[in-house]
Amino acid sequence: MINGHELPDWDVRAWLNTDNPLTLQDLRGRVVVVHAFQMLCPGCVSHGIPQAKAIQQAFPPSRVQVIGLHTVFEHHESMNETALKAFLYEYRIRFPVGIDRPDPRGNPLPLTMQAWHLEGTPTLIILDAQGHVRLQHFGQLDDLRAGAVIGQLVAEADASFTTSGT
Amino acid sequence: MINGHELPDWDVRAWLNTDNPLTLQDLRGRVVVVHAFQMLCPGCVSHGIPQAKAIQQAFPPSRVQVIGLHTVFEHHESMNETALKAFLYEYRIRFPVGIDRPDPRGNPLPLTMQAWHLEGTPTLIILDAQGHVRLQHFGQLDDLRAGAVIGQLVAEADASFTTSGT
Amino acid sequence: MINGHELPDWDVRAWLNTDNPLTLQDLRGRVVVVHAFQMLCPGCVSHGIPQAKAIQQAFPPSRVQVIGLHTVFEHHESMNETALKAFLYEYRIRFPVGIDRPDPRGNPLPLTMQAWHLEGTPTLIILDAQGHVRLQHFGQLDDLRAGAVIGQLVAEADASFTTSGT
Amino acid sequence: MINGHELPDWDVRAWLNTDNPLTLQDLRGRVVVVHAFQMLCPGCVSHGIPQAKAIQQAFPPSRVQVIGLHTVFEHHESMNETALKAFLYEYRIRFPVGIDRPDPRGNPLPLTMQAWHLEGTPTLIILDAQGHVRLQHFGQLDDLRAGAVIGQLVAEADASFTTSGT
Repeated sequence: MINGHELPDWDVRAWLNTDNPLTLQDLRGRVVVVHAFQMLCPGCVSHGIPQAKAIQQAFPPSRVQVIGLHTVFEHHESMNETALKAFLYEYRIRFPVGIDRPDPRGNPLPLTMQAWHLEGTPTLIILDAQGHVRLQHFGQLDDLRAGAVIGQLVAEADASFTTSGT
Repeated sequence: MINGHELPDWDVRAWLNTDNPLTLQDLRGRVVVVHAFQMLCPGCVSHGIPQAKAIQQAFPPSRVQVIGLHTVFEHHESMNETALKAFLYEYRIRFPVGIDRPDPRGNPLPLTMQAWHLEGTPTLIILDAQGHVRLQHFGQLDDLRAGAVIGQLVAEADASFTTSGT
Repeated sequence: MINGHELPDWDVRAWLNTDNPLTLQDLRGRVVVVHAFQMLCPGCVSHGIPQAKAIQQAFPPSRVQVIGLHTVFEHHESMNETALKAFLYEYRIRFPVGIDRPDPRGNPLPLTMQAWHLEGTPTLIILDAQGHVRLQHFGQLDDLRAGAVIGQLVAEADASFTTSGT
Repeated sequence: MINGHELPDWDVRAWLNTDNPLTLQDLRGRVVVVHAFQMLCPGCVSHGIPQAKAIQQAFPPSRVQVIGLHTVFEHHESMNETALKAFLYEYRIRFPVGIDRPDPRGNPLPLTMQAWHLEGTPTLIILDAQGHVRLQHFGQLDDLRAGAVIGQLVAEADASFTTSGT
């Protein structure tokens, strides 16, 4: 676990599964779990998305917010917004999903993916309640380790709240 | 296992992973395993496609031919040929895949799906070397039972060959 | 698949899950699936035993008979008959299990294990309806291949019955 | 997660995988994960033990100590110390395992199992660095939730250390 830097906010073209756009700033006070994925990425479908759904179910949203980030860097034509909607529906994904903004200068990597230095998909990014990156993992991370990081950050948020409340 | 009727040939708009269109007639003499799927169908992705790939690896193509049939009956816009190509590439699917022909009269079910009375995806259809349907299973069929049907039909094909060769 | 030799009958000290001792001779006419295992062998517990139970459920006993063979060659003290009974009860194993006879000359390998040249556990041995070994596999064999061999041998038994019945 | 009572120390007849007997008191300052199991309990073998091994690998022993507790309450004859040693060897279990002391008055439940009010096996018990029970779960607990509890307690131990160190 890294003791981490702040991230610039995501740059998202559209949101699904939420009525209002979300910002990292809005989520301050909660642990934020970002699952960067592509709908046609096998490792995302078999591992990352089930894990993100399980995290959403295991923790109350007031403490831990799961966010999907659709970081399309290949097969752009096929992984468009309409296709993503069908995918979210078929896979019963209910957490908010932001569509990372395509690079207007033509870089195949979308803007948040560039700004956050993501190496590919799936990537799991976990931010503490102050918005600092505490874990950024490309590939599959087992549930035990993912749970441990989230549990630790939830406890830190509690302790911090207690302290600042004194 | 049913002791089966002949099927009308598939009606396919395009083939992927093969240079030449295939017909059931061409495959006479081999056991044919048809995996009817949609690329955005979770049960196809998690179970049916891995099973079809395993069948392809377990049996020599001279005896058992695996065929994918992309029977799109929902989200037509998103499961187009370009998207399917990306899907086959990402999931490393090498067996021939036919795209079931959309109904020109506007029925959301494509033509082969209608003609074969398929109930949904995934559906596994196994034909014997004479082209008779011997198994048609909607949903997930365990590998043990799938293997048993294929093994039985391979043995029948051998016996038939021996007899007719005498 | 091998086109196989006959095996000498098993040499079993006691039978569990059956009132009467069984012989290979008695089972002529059926495909026989022998799962050679040890109750403290991890690969047997995680793979071989679930597979043997699944085979028992997938095929009618009149066609395919599953037999467990407890071939203890290590930790003899702990894998005794009382412990095996507890194991069969806890793992809900219902098919007949024979206890391979310990070697009176002190070889740690029991007698059937020696006679059949088994390399270890789990080993899957499949015999056709004439009692010839058609598959002998040390380690894990996937369900698809196991099913295919059984299906083929069932079909052969049918064909043979038809022929001899004429 | 419960905010928990202290537990009386385990009452153990013998220890395996450790040269010295352990007490809860000795482990104060570390998160302690106790996996109560029986070697012939299928749910322990398929889920609980792999999870305990994964916990041991995921966390440094200076922070999280995994302890196995062999709480035999059935098949006592077969799950004796010799058999348990063979089991630990075959399943490559390296963490310390205590053998819960049989009840001299003849209750089939051993003494720690009684004192801790365990309902069966597998049971996962997690204690914080002060020795309070924070989770006691009979049956299977998913890795995500187990990891979250451990992560939280590790963070609490850190915070407490920091505070008391000031």
